[in-house]
Amino acid sequence: MNFKEIIEGVYREVKDIDDRGKLASYIPELAQVNPKRFGIHLSTVDNYQFGVGHYTERFSIQSISKVLALTLAYKIKNQRIWKRVGIEPSGTSFNSLVQLEADKGIPRNPFINAGAMVIADILITHLKNPKKDFIAFVRSLSNNPSIDYSETVAASEKSVGYRNVALCNFIKSFGNIENHPQVVLDFYFDLCSIEMNCQELSETFLFLAHDGKTLSGTPVLTNHQTKRINALMQTCGFYDESGEFAFKVGLPGKSGVGGGIIAINPDRYTIAVWSPRLNAKGNSYKGVRVLEKFTKKTESSIF
Amino acid sequence: MNFKEIIEGVYREVKDIDDRGKLASYIPELAQVNPKRFGIHLSTVDNYQFGVGHYTERFSIQSISKVLALTLAYKIKNQRIWKRVGIEPSGTSFNSLVQLEADKGIPRNPFINAGAMVIADILITHLKNPKKDFIAFVRSLSNNPSIDYSETVAASEKSVGYRNVALCNFIKSFGNIENHPQVVLDFYFDLCSIEMNCQELSETFLFLAHDGKTLSGTPVLTNHQTKRINALMQTCGFYDESGEFAFKVGLPGKSGVGGGIIAINPDRYTIAVWSPRLNAKGNSYKGVRVLEKFTKKTESSIF
Amino acid sequence: MNFKEIIEGVYREVKDIDDRGKLASYIPELAQVNPKRFGIHLSTVDNYQFGVGHYTERFSIQSISKVLALTLAYKIKNQRIWKRVGIEPSGTSFNSLVQLEADKGIPRNPFINAGAMVIADILITHLKNPKKDFIAFVRSLSNNPSIDYSETVAASEKSVGYRNVALCNFIKSFGNIENHPQVVLDFYFDLCSIEMNCQELSETFLFLAHDGKTLSGTPVLTNHQTKRINALMQTCGFYDESGEFAFKVGLPGKSGVGGGIIAINPDRYTIAVWSPRLNAKGNSYKGVRVLEKFTKKTESSIF
Amino acid sequence: MNFKEIIEGVYREVKDIDDRGKLASYIPELAQVNPKRFGIHLSTVDNYQFGVGHYTERFSIQSISKVLALTLAYKIKNQRIWKRVGIEPSGTSFNSLVQLEADKGIPRNPFINAGAMVIADILITHLKNPKKDFIAFVRSLSNNPSIDYSETVAASEKSVGYRNVALCNFIKSFGNIENHPQVVLDFYFDLCSIEMNCQELSETFLFLAHDGKTLSGTPVLTNHQTKRINALMQTCGFYDESGEFAFKVGLPGKSGVGGGIIAINPDRYTIAVWSPRLNAKGNSYKGVRVLEKFTKKTESSIF
Repeated sequence: MNFKEIIEGVYREVKDIDDRGKLASYIPELAQVNPKRFGIHLSTVDNYQFGVGHYTERFSIQSISKVLALTLAYKIKNQRIWKRVGIEPSGTSFNSLVQLEADKGIPRNPFINAGAMVIADILITHLKNPKKDFIAFVRSLSNNPSIDYSETVAASEKSVGYRNVALCNFIKSFGNIENHPQVVLDFYFDLCSIEMNCQELSETFLFLAHDGKTLSGTPVLTNHQTKRINALMQTCGFYDESGEFAFKVGLPGKSGVGGGIIAINPDRYTIAVWSPRLNAKGNSYKGVRVLEKFTKKTESSIF
Repeated sequence: MNFKEIIEGVYREVKDIDDRGKLASYIPELAQVNPKRFGIHLSTVDNYQFGVGHYTERFSIQSISKVLALTLAYKIKNQRIWKRVGIEPSGTSFNSLVQLEADKGIPRNPFINAGAMVIADILITHLKNPKKDFIAFVRSLSNNPSIDYSETVAASEKSVGYRNVALCNFIKSFGNIENHPQVVLDFYFDLCSIEMNCQELSETFLFLAHDGKTLSGTPVLTNHQTKRINALMQTCGFYDESGEFAFKVGLPGKSGVGGGIIAINPDRYTIAVWSPRLNAKGNSYKGVRVLEKFTKKTESSIF
Repeated sequence: MNFKEIIEGVYREVKDIDDRGKLASYIPELAQVNPKRFGIHLSTVDNYQFGVGHYTERFSIQSISKVLALTLAYKIKNQRIWKRVGIEPSGTSFNSLVQLEADKGIPRNPFINAGAMVIADILITHLKNPKKDFIAFVRSLSNNPSIDYSETVAASEKSVGYRNVALCNFIKSFGNIENHPQVVLDFYFDLCSIEMNCQELSETFLFLAHDGKTLSGTPVLTNHQTKRINALMQTCGFYDESGEFAFKVGLPGKSGVGGGIIAINPDRYTIAVWSPRLNAKGNSYKGVRVLEKFTKKTESSIF
Repeated sequence: MNFKEIIEGVYREVKDIDDRGKLASYIPELAQVNPKRFGIHLSTVDNYQFGVGHYTERFSIQSISKVLALTLAYKIKNQRIWKRVGIEPSGTSFNSLVQLEADKGIPRNPFINAGAMVIADILITHLKNPKKDFIAFVRSLSNNPSIDYSETVAASEKSVGYRNVALCNFIKSFGNIENHPQVVLDFYFDLCSIEMNCQELSETFLFLAHDGKTLSGTPVLTNHQTKRINALMQTCGFYDESGEFAFKVGLPGKSGVGGGIIAINPDRYTIAVWSPRLNAKGNSYKGVRVLEKFTKKTESSIF
């Protein structure tokens, strides 16, 4: 059985399950997305591509962009970034603030909001024009100049992001934010507002399955750095559900509250899924199911 | 370059580094181990074996046995064990008790002490003679009838294990321990007292690199269950350093405060290291260094 | 209006309110008490005494005895006890274990369980026959040789007190318990099992309203020590409801899960109330109401 | 011995002790105060006044103004404010954020920063011109039209108050702040910047020793409300040291990081002390010593 048949099979199996997930309601703009949207797209390092469902419709990739921000910061500063952000899972979200206090303002990893803010702060310090330079980097990864921020979504988040304002000022109070919190927050909300479709997402992340090089051969990260980002996604990519994702799916990956998930099988493929309803842990309900079935049928868990 | 040369090279490189680790001092018996002991042993699914240093000298495997206890419980009860213990990383050790309170007595995963006590409780309930039946199971995995508990080490831990007594009674107060806490604690301390050498350790764990079957073909777990235990070791096997181990080494594994580490490369090999001095996170200082160098040189990180 | 009329009035007003409290159910023996019991007794430093309702029926004073244990330890060791137990409110019960961890085994105050265990440990170290000597002390305070422990209640608590076993062993792990945890726990459960009626309770505590002397003039504590114990009851006497009790009642006091409350008005009187149903914070529902009305009508809040 | 002699005696005893306290360094403007300043002033309900040292020199009253803000909010909204802020001690400062999370944005009491922000928010909603109306209220209490905010100190705090920005946005994220966080923070920093000298401070707070009426007879609060504010100061007025202050001094009171302390003896007097160096808990080192000695010598602890 090949990838195409397996993906079509999984798509059919999951399409009509009773989706017990809920739309991310705290961001006004995301609450309006059609909850029935459902797409899958696979890209292999052998240049095979296949998609089903709404795989060409763009959605807000949200936290998935944290991997891209980390990639650029890692490329620029290499190991020095780990003085300002950790590489350990964060336990329950419940602890985030008390952990930040116990850890004196050093976020546990770059994929929780606090850590992504520190990464955003690093990028602001090192990029000439952070917003412009970052999207240029993302476009170069995907070889797709039409990828862009959504001003509407960014504005929507800024209007209600009190908890993120709290977080960023809290880190600043420990001295682990260099720029003004408002500047960091604006860039952070921009990062989260990037929109892609499943095909673009799986293409953009292909360098992580390809030893750090884009399909056209452009080096993004070293082989070594690439493995480390994959390891980080494995242990920290799904909030409180990272362990469960490793357990059930067995691939490094990252999810966003827009309902997207990207997963990487090193040296083989990337797979992107989109379905907006989220489970209790904030990850796409159908998305997790798709990937669980997919790695089981393809026997491609890395474990 | 083959495994033998790489292991010999890594052994030489790490042997004389300035070992900044410290012996586990809170268990009287472990504090007396010769801190200079250092051994490595590799076993492959192709039946290749190679060891250097003190790889035939036995040591206390301590928490490493939590994987074996989990294996037996998983074999007996399958998915039902996950109602009583989670599969998520625990964040900092600092939180363990408050997390247990927040999670109403359900430990975060089976590799923290609290989780291993729940697994011990499950085994007590389901085994006729827990202590005898468990060691028989371990012996069958390793095909080695001489593996045994150390009564001295178990007694040494029992004499000072106030924090573990606290933990077990705390879980009992939530109703997630069925047997009397004293019975559970006695069995738990026995489990931790098992002794093996590096060769025995890498042989015992080979089933996890071999789709759940021992080298002689005896099924222990299903392929599916095996992948899940590996995933769990990846995300939770090294206390607060699980993220760092995934990041630097890139293999599922488990450490013990006796200074042992076992790591698994699915479908390829297991590798055991022993060096008693521990880093600040409680994992063998030299052991982590050895595995970091080994996966780098063999390019065998799973990521 | 005199005390008698006010107490009779308050008794009538509160007697038939809708008592939304619940019996302490976690101690089997206490769950069997008749929930309709309701008594009040006042003793003044001028030797006036008045009681209504079931004020001559004994009940389990439970945590109220922590004040008596502290009194004896304070008498024996004076200020040195504050090296082993704090004098600050504990915030929510929710934090108790994490606070104990943050504070390295020094309980926040002598009225939370952890603190009372440390006090029990001090008494065990300094008394020849702790159980016998302590009850002798209590009898001398009350001038009543019939006051005693309840073996049944103590046994009932011992059979289910897993959380207290956890607590005591946790403190021991920090080195702040000198004796064996089991010995400390046995004495602790004995202390909590003492039985008195409202009249005996108000008489026993009269020394705290009388500059540290019993009514017959026997010195128990210095004037200075007495004020300090009163201050401690004010800030820490009612678990998470200490602030609310100070706010509504305005007297130092102590409650127990048996439904008893003792309150002290320095230089004037003590008043004991008993009604077994407890509010959500573990304090007698009717008892708090009685004292709120009583201090309002007598205008005898100390604030 | 009368008040004058006792105050002079205490002043001499404490003046030259080895002051191990430290200036509040995190607010630039406060770090510049002369650390040798030391003043005491007493006002009685019988209209007796006496001061020593720098009792006529103004200083930043900081958190002491939280009592005045609470007074005005309590006067306007009466019991309804307790839906939005608690009346319990907060345990260690260490917990503040996690407690706020556990309590869903309801601060533990109105004297921790979080609680004072909610009070500030209430005042903003109910006052026509909050800044102007509040200082008018304070002037009316003290009968002193020259009392004012310090724009310099307020600006100094605003420039570094990241942690307070974090706190206010965090509460807002729970919905317990009605106005824009920036507006609340500006008013909050203004409140903290009020300056008084010891004499003005003891006069301003005299209504709390006088059944809620100013010395000239103007009603501020009811007798009942007054007792409650005193009770609240007793249990929550000194951060983590509230228990110790009750224990050693035995009076309700409130401190500020400017080095001021006000203490109230209901129906008798108020006493203000100022000495800028703070102990480890953030309360005036000499101030606490003065009050401890004063209540001991006057035997006027309320306990």
